[in-house]
Amino acid sequence: MKQTDMNIFAQLESEVRSYCRSFPTVFTKAKGYKMWDEAGKEYLDFFSGAGALNYGHNEDSMKEKLVNYIMSDGITHSLDMATQPKAEFLETFNEVILKPRNLEYKVMFPGPTGTNTVESALKLARKVTGRTDIISFTNGFHGMTIGSLSVTGNAFKRKGAGIPLQNVVTMPYDSFVNEGLDTLEYLERFLEDGGSGVDIPAAMILETVQGEGGINAASFEWLQRIEAICKRWGILLIVDDVQAGVGRTGTFFSFEKAGIKPDIVCMSKSIGGYGLPLAITLIRPDLDIWAPGEHNGTFRGNNHAFVTATAALEFWKDPEFEHNIQKRSERIYSFLESIVEKYPEVKGEVRGRGYMVGIGSEVEGLSEKIAAEAFNRGLIMETSGPKDEVFKLFPPLIIDDAGLEAGFEIIEASVKTALEAAEPVAN
Amino acid sequence: MKQTDMNIFAQLESEVRSYCRSFPTVFTKAKGYKMWDEAGKEYLDFFSGAGALNYGHNEDSMKEKLVNYIMSDGITHSLDMATQPKAEFLETFNEVILKPRNLEYKVMFPGPTGTNTVESALKLARKVTGRTDIISFTNGFHGMTIGSLSVTGNAFKRKGAGIPLQNVVTMPYDSFVNEGLDTLEYLERFLEDGGSGVDIPAAMILETVQGEGGINAASFEWLQRIEAICKRWGILLIVDDVQAGVGRTGTFFSFEKAGIKPDIVCMSKSIGGYGLPLAITLIRPDLDIWAPGEHNGTFRGNNHAFVTATAALEFWKDPEFEHNIQKRSERIYSFLESIVEKYPEVKGEVRGRGYMVGIGSEVEGLSEKIAAEAFNRGLIMETSGPKDEVFKLFPPLIIDDAGLEAGFEIIEASVKTALEAAEPVAN
Amino acid sequence: MKQTDMNIFAQLESEVRSYCRSFPTVFTKAKGYKMWDEAGKEYLDFFSGAGALNYGHNEDSMKEKLVNYIMSDGITHSLDMATQPKAEFLETFNEVILKPRNLEYKVMFPGPTGTNTVESALKLARKVTGRTDIISFTNGFHGMTIGSLSVTGNAFKRKGAGIPLQNVVTMPYDSFVNEGLDTLEYLERFLEDGGSGVDIPAAMILETVQGEGGINAASFEWLQRIEAICKRWGILLIVDDVQAGVGRTGTFFSFEKAGIKPDIVCMSKSIGGYGLPLAITLIRPDLDIWAPGEHNGTFRGNNHAFVTATAALEFWKDPEFEHNIQKRSERIYSFLESIVEKYPEVKGEVRGRGYMVGIGSEVEGLSEKIAAEAFNRGLIMETSGPKDEVFKLFPPLIIDDAGLEAGFEIIEASVKTALEAAEPVAN
Amino acid sequence: MKQTDMNIFAQLESEVRSYCRSFPTVFTKAKGYKMWDEAGKEYLDFFSGAGALNYGHNEDSMKEKLVNYIMSDGITHSLDMATQPKAEFLETFNEVILKPRNLEYKVMFPGPTGTNTVESALKLARKVTGRTDIISFTNGFHGMTIGSLSVTGNAFKRKGAGIPLQNVVTMPYDSFVNEGLDTLEYLERFLEDGGSGVDIPAAMILETVQGEGGINAASFEWLQRIEAICKRWGILLIVDDVQAGVGRTGTFFSFEKAGIKPDIVCMSKSIGGYGLPLAITLIRPDLDIWAPGEHNGTFRGNNHAFVTATAALEFWKDPEFEHNIQKRSERIYSFLESIVEKYPEVKGEVRGRGYMVGIGSEVEGLSEKIAAEAFNRGLIMETSGPKDEVFKLFPPLIIDDAGLEAGFEIIEASVKTALEAAEPVAN
Repeated sequence: MKQTDMNIFAQLESEVRSYCRSFPTVFTKAKGYKMWDEAGKEYLDFFSGAGALNYGHNEDSMKEKLVNYIMSDGITHSLDMATQPKAEFLETFNEVILKPRNLEYKVMFPGPTGTNTVESALKLARKVTGRTDIISFTNGFHGMTIGSLSVTGNAFKRKGAGIPLQNVVTMPYDSFVNEGLDTLEYLERFLEDGGSGVDIPAAMILETVQGEGGINAASFEWLQRIEAICKRWGILLIVDDVQAGVGRTGTFFSFEKAGIKPDIVCMSKSIGGYGLPLAITLIRPDLDIWAPGEHNGTFRGNNHAFVTATAALEFWKDPEFEHNIQKRSERIYSFLESIVEKYPEVKGEVRGRGYMVGIGSEVEGLSEKIAAEAFNRGLIMETSGPKDEVFKLFPPLIIDDAGLEAGFEIIEASVKTALEAAEPVAN
Repeated sequence: MKQTDMNIFAQLESEVRSYCRSFPTVFTKAKGYKMWDEAGKEYLDFFSGAGALNYGHNEDSMKEKLVNYIMSDGITHSLDMATQPKAEFLETFNEVILKPRNLEYKVMFPGPTGTNTVESALKLARKVTGRTDIISFTNGFHGMTIGSLSVTGNAFKRKGAGIPLQNVVTMPYDSFVNEGLDTLEYLERFLEDGGSGVDIPAAMILETVQGEGGINAASFEWLQRIEAICKRWGILLIVDDVQAGVGRTGTFFSFEKAGIKPDIVCMSKSIGGYGLPLAITLIRPDLDIWAPGEHNGTFRGNNHAFVTATAALEFWKDPEFEHNIQKRSERIYSFLESIVEKYPEVKGEVRGRGYMVGIGSEVEGLSEKIAAEAFNRGLIMETSGPKDEVFKLFPPLIIDDAGLEAGFEIIEASVKTALEAAEPVAN
Repeated sequence: MKQTDMNIFAQLESEVRSYCRSFPTVFTKAKGYKMWDEAGKEYLDFFSGAGALNYGHNEDSMKEKLVNYIMSDGITHSLDMATQPKAEFLETFNEVILKPRNLEYKVMFPGPTGTNTVESALKLARKVTGRTDIISFTNGFHGMTIGSLSVTGNAFKRKGAGIPLQNVVTMPYDSFVNEGLDTLEYLERFLEDGGSGVDIPAAMILETVQGEGGINAASFEWLQRIEAICKRWGILLIVDDVQAGVGRTGTFFSFEKAGIKPDIVCMSKSIGGYGLPLAITLIRPDLDIWAPGEHNGTFRGNNHAFVTATAALEFWKDPEFEHNIQKRSERIYSFLESIVEKYPEVKGEVRGRGYMVGIGSEVEGLSEKIAAEAFNRGLIMETSGPKDEVFKLFPPLIIDDAGLEAGFEIIEASVKTALEAAEPVAN
Repeated sequence: MKQTDMNIFAQLESEVRSYCRSFPTVFTKAKGYKMWDEAGKEYLDFFSGAGALNYGHNEDSMKEKLVNYIMSDGITHSLDMATQPKAEFLETFNEVILKPRNLEYKVMFPGPTGTNTVESALKLARKVTGRTDIISFTNGFHGMTIGSLSVTGNAFKRKGAGIPLQNVVTMPYDSFVNEGLDTLEYLERFLEDGGSGVDIPAAMILETVQGEGGINAASFEWLQRIEAICKRWGILLIVDDVQAGVGRTGTFFSFEKAGIKPDIVCMSKSIGGYGLPLAITLIRPDLDIWAPGEHNGTFRGNNHAFVTATAALEFWKDPEFEHNIQKRSERIYSFLESIVEKYPEVKGEVRGRGYMVGIGSEVEGLSEKIAAEAFNRGLIMETSGPKDEVFKLFPPLIIDDAGLEAGFEIIEASVKTALEAAEPVAN
């Protein structure tokens, strides 16, 4: 295998590329929670494809089923024709996921990306209610196409639209202003006052834990009150579980422990299991008033992903799987707390829930330095938040204790080095 | 293999599903230009996944490379990190496609769907020019997310947005009003008159042959004049080659024979070769002013698709491949002309170019009946146009003469039966 | 009376002021078709306050009634409370104007400016139809507030909005593209084709003769076909008669000779008779579904203007008044034709109808020079059109033959001088 | 004088009329703080044309100057040509109002209505900053044309637009949520957080006391902090002083006591003095970057109103005038407090500042009943607020003690009767 020239990307790929700048090496192979580059260097993956690889890389049982399917010339691309793998996915998802959780949803297959499921959810909510506005929340991230971008908070990304983004009102997420201020009292005043300038919206869209927005976790009480407000005013509740779903926060859906039942749920990333493009929109059955073909997309019938998505659901048949995530996530949380305590110079705050956690640091640029140090030491980790102020731990759910420990060591070492490097600047 | 209950889809899948209503059977296997359902019935595929399967189903050389890649635990999902398959795709695309055609473009990987590449193109055009409006054309189809939908003409699909679609002016496509009216004289009057209410737009976006809009092919002269108008007024020209590209009209890019060089080109569908989700946006290098991460998407690094996309480009190394498409497309066109002539009751008109052709019938509902008849006889074929007035021949490019002949027979028989069924109504 | 320092305006008034730049003198007194400045210089008024002074300045019968009303402490400002002057205006307008023309309309009093009546018309049309889009026409001018500006064609004025102007589609006005092209065939194709990207609008809004847009007169046949298209598609027809109404084109309403009956008519400018702010919106009775106060404005009850508006309607009781306008307008037209013929260097074209006429010159800047020359010689005249290419004759309707002749002499002399001045440039 | 048939209005005027429904009689004459109807019944005017008659009706000195001007055939309508009355107004306004207050503004004359000055302010703010968004405040009222309506809070009025209102973010006005919540901490969090979904706007627009929105007075401290926030972020501050200005709150500009200097000030209503249509936009000189004619309006040169506006400024030359307003406003406030105390069943709260005050009652429908009772007793008074929950005392500034006392008696009697009428319902 010839060595790849990194200049190829600079020469031929658009300037828009970003992760290859933070992780400047050419990856070739991956398994479980590990990745390797061309030089054979091994990396621990505490990034998981931004939540698309919750089961780790190239998991063996999915791999086997996928290869068998391909070898048998199973239909690959089918738009929304009926196929066996799709039927199996629908049935399995219903049996393994929905029924045991006492949930009833129709499944829609929009195009196979997160932004496509969000766009489909917004369109349906507007159709069902006949209203135009959507309430979104500060630091929400929902995608980069115009509809999804309009409900996304990040100013840099919004500016990329090149047009004013409309039909959206942004309300403060839990604890946005400060710990004391009750953001929902505020929100409800806007709804109840006929002179508030805020019309009753078609829907509210939110993440229960905000990934890109800085690993902000809404409290269960806040989510319950949101649901009650939506019910009171006849507003649909859309949970965007693209990043927080599929076990990332400790349960299959991120909203389970809050005890709420959203009207529409957006899923993508790890729903395909193997990292293959897939997205689904879950719709309360009585809201499923789509006309045939009213929303579509060429790759909504990605059968390879149906095969692996069905296989991935096997994990959820055993309660131990969920139990283990929750157990280990306590360990991750404790580790982060210990870092904050041990290194007060980080001016850090532990954020998040489950395997979707991180430390927000008040020291400008520190989180980026820590992530860069970790990369040098062989660990892949991302930053998030409006100022990249959070370094984010996103290991795959299947990571074992050894993997976690090895990761923790690298992270702590990276924190130390980053702090040392930062010090002279302070003096 | 157990038999699938078609009710599963009605029970569990959203009402938005559509093709499974036109083709009511469960597909299991596919190869080349053939598909099979659970009952073992064989179908000729004159649909090609709406243009996503130009190389046919499960082509052997791609299949082999894909399976080898998977078996070697090659990295599957990589966001926009650097990977070997991506480097190989970039290099091969540049060597095999761009250079021989004297084209220079940077390659952007938006999310892996057609609508994502269109959204990225519109955003970039607005950023480059600082203007907000886009000129689109009657019966254009560019996708279902809000940005792409705003430049799509179809009223039913537009209504699905649930909000007014903005920042777009629709101009008449070639021959839209009638054969005599010069639509470009009209368009240019709007640009040159400071009182026209139409501002100079950021870009014009168009398909050289409109697939969903009714297989309308713009003349080469019309395309050349569009390019000249864009140059005169400093407007970017975006060609949406999602459906018409990758050989569908006889050349790799649909605009080659017109001799134009768009500023931005949108590709998806068959660019991945094997039917796997992929999309690329080609950008004139000096326009590539994206900031890193200004547009992104979780599945923009679908390495399985990079592997098959690179393998598919092998076809284009041999000039015979392109030559054969062009030769055979004459045969398809002749067949359609013979149908129009032989069956005047069809009130038909042959439309399109290359392997992207069809017959538009003035008889209401006839095209849908013909397609339904064809399905019963074992041929998959779609309708298009604002009233589904066109039946559309979209065989894979790799179809052989036997396949074509078998298809023609079924189609002619279907035309006959549909006409007979229609007759009593006329009396 | 002390002499006014023109610097006052430069020092204290905003840069937005414009006419005081074309006519740089301080006016003090006016009567009939004459105006005087502080220095006592007399001017013929061929401008008529852009159509707000069709009855000339300070007409004696209105003046008397107005002063009597003021002296009696008649209520001046009443919002939309019931007052005697308003009742009298409503009754007189109905008796003198509507009934004899076989028209039935409810009268709405929006705020007392042209743009307010247009805004009210657009809002009502959207409410009645439940649709959002409006079709406007190239070079239409309807006002400067955001709603009216969105249906105005002029690029300079649109840019002043500072935001993209939405919910509007601009269609070509009669003869916009060229004499041969049938703009209505074009328009109707957009309405009838479900893939045109143009939704059925709430209304079309148009001027029968475009004042600001370059004195373009639509043919009666074109107007009749517009009305038929509106009927066919259930689109409301709004005629903006702010400038062309109140006799300016030879009849009270500009659309009378075309034989059409708009659903909504916008009036302002000369409707108040004396140059006092007033605007009315005429509404087909069955469309008057406003809720009380759903549109309002502080000065909608300007009783001084009601008094003079009622007095002005006296003119219309005598058929001779209308007859005389039409007779004299032929004379004006002949004069303009003679200019075009006698001075081919003007490269002129006579445009307009009634007392709303002008010459469009292909020579850049010539019309402005002619208007400037006329001012120096004691005649007030404006230019219009997207490039100010038209000089516009707008004498008051009450002008006598002597006034016309005197004006013609000045204009011809101004043309000559402007051409002489222009010549050396040509060499 | 013949008696007017009230049916005329029902037959000929649009359903949109509203005040003639609350005050069902035909008014004929008015003087100072009194009005008379056709039957000769006298009314105390505690409404003042919604703030357009701060100097009372038909004030003698203005009346004399106006009649003299008319009798001398002074130019009535002049667009924005230079005229003597306009020069005099500009000079007097500068000398009497701006200079003594240490303010420097250029004066713009938009069309002569409140909504026109607001539209001009928004356009200029967007032009100056190159930004599109405006921050408005809950229960703000700024006018009924699309631009002004977009910054108006009232849901009923917004719905009248018939289109989604865009480019605006509504923030909570002082004390909107509850007394304890600091609305500005909230607002500033949105500005400082790059992920808030709220872009830095072109301007904030606000009334210092909200008239239509329920007589809500912002504290001076709140206004000072708003100004500081605007300065910090480079946001223009627009004070809409259309209703609160010209002495209504005790000083000429409503913001004087807060010690702030807005970048743009919108004035209309009483600026013309006599109830004649006029509006002005005051612009910080360095922001006056309008191009000539970039905003215009036919009646922006209403010379009758210039004459009375200049005459009205005479009042302000004597400091006693201002002093008296402030003194008497204490008396009005005390009266309202006594009502709240004496009649706890009103569940009332005194609101407002200066002569812009009222009582907000929690008893549904009570305020409307009180106003209706007052009308029967010969006093004109309006309600306001999103549920018409406030009855609003707006006497003219020139009212004497006798007038006030007479009014108070009627109001107290009306409160009693309304409460008695309400009682049986409560049982």
